[in-house]
Amino acid sequence: MSGGRSSRGDSASARQIVYGRNPVREALRGQRRVLRCWAGGSGAEGIDVAPEIQLQTVSPEELDRIAGSPDHQSIVCEVELFPYVDASDLLDDEQALIVALDQVQDPQNFGAICRSAECAGATGVVVPERRSVDVTAAVSKASAGAVEHLRIAHVRNLADYLAEARDRGAWIYGAEQGAAISYTQPDYSDRTVLVLGSEGKGLRPRVREACDQLVSLPVLGRIDSLNVSATAAVMLYEALRHRNESTG
Amino acid sequence: MSGGRSSRGDSASARQIVYGRNPVREALRGQRRVLRCWAGGSGAEGIDVAPEIQLQTVSPEELDRIAGSPDHQSIVCEVELFPYVDASDLLDDEQALIVALDQVQDPQNFGAICRSAECAGATGVVVPERRSVDVTAAVSKASAGAVEHLRIAHVRNLADYLAEARDRGAWIYGAEQGAAISYTQPDYSDRTVLVLGSEGKGLRPRVREACDQLVSLPVLGRIDSLNVSATAAVMLYEALRHRNESTG
Repeated sequence: MSGGRSSRGDSASARQIVYGRNPVREALRGQRRVLRCWAGGSGAEGIDVAPEIQLQTVSPEELDRIAGSPDHQSIVCEVELFPYVDASDLLDDEQALIVALDQVQDPQNFGAICRSAECAGATGVVVPERRSVDVTAAVSKASAGAVEHLRIAHVRNLADYLAEARDRGAWIYGAEQGAAISYTQPDYSDRTVLVLGSEGKGLRPRVREACDQLVSLPVLGRIDSLNVSATAAVMLYEALRHRNESTG
Repeated sequence: MSGGRSSRGDSASARQIVYGRNPVREALRGQRRVLRCWAGGSGAEGIDVAPEIQLQTVSPEELDRIAGSPDHQSIVCEVELFPYVDASDLLDDEQALIVALDQVQDPQNFGAICRSAECAGATGVVVPERRSVDVTAAVSKASAGAVEHLRIAHVRNLADYLAEARDRGAWIYGAEQGAAISYTQPDYSDRTVLVLGSEGKGLRPRVREACDQLVSLPVLGRIDSLNVSATAAVMLYEALRHRNESTG
């Protein structure tokens, strides 16, 4: 699956750009090879670029052009395409903690969720191939470089993947506003998949039906709903808390 | 305190701009008066603008100019200045749950924290006057309009405010990466102030010393730290969980 996806961009050059201090720093010690770097002024200061990687000093305008964004903090690098993993492999771990995103299309939210997932020690993140965001430079930036260490998988059909996960012993918890069961109720100690929908639209019906349980966070204020990345952080750390309490 | 702050902008007109569908919608049912609206095309569709508020249709370019940002989703309104509250008043509630931010300067993070605080039913958010962000249009947007309902206070000196809060019976918990005590340990049932520092820099020494306890979230991945707004969401919902369990 990941192979098919990656081949998308390998016509001219199977390469991507990563920009920003944290993303570049994490790329340099992350899961894909860094091919070369460009920095402006003191952009590379404090960043450990291995001697075998070509580091070129360029003008701010050139950096903007290479990064395709002014958001580069004076450092940009070229990396191999993001190495998506096979979603099924994420289920091998008996204690797998997986975040599945249904149509989350905002790079900021996707990046923020990846950052929380990596910090919470999640096994990986699963997103549908269509109507989702790829791991772009903007996503890496929003994740503070967390994606450079995180296992991320594409699946053709999220509901089918959740059915597979259930067959393999995972419990599937979908976040849905107003669901009667609190997110604090599940045990989370076995293989767990947390399913989060897009803001506004929530979970699609087939994805919703593929969940063992729909859970909600209390919303006590006057606005509709918590941000999807805040919801993800709260649920990930709740799962972690349950696991720590059950082992210690 | 809020009076002094608000007077900053009342020379020409004591007014601010709010833009974006959620922010404008929340402003229209929020704590400050909406003076007029501008919309482009179907920008005002589904938004309940009271008949007494002047609604003008303008071009996209004009909207960009009025909003001072292209991020307006075809609807902009003019509102009264943000009505900061007195920080001491937030402590009146015996069950107060307050978020205090030490030098959080990023509008995205500030807005996201306000959104989570409003959703978690927090009493309010306290920020120092200097080296913090004001409640700007960008903050309102990042909060999905939550700031329009949330009590936000400025204080001259955050450490002094925390000392006052402690004198009035509040427990002060500072988030610090690597602190020995887990954020799940405190009871959170009395008046509580959660103190969060800027990303990268953490809490300033005097603010740190004003805390009763420093607590941390586990960080299990390879990157340094959780985003400050994710930390805020996790801690707010942890406080809520403790309170729900102790009452029910």
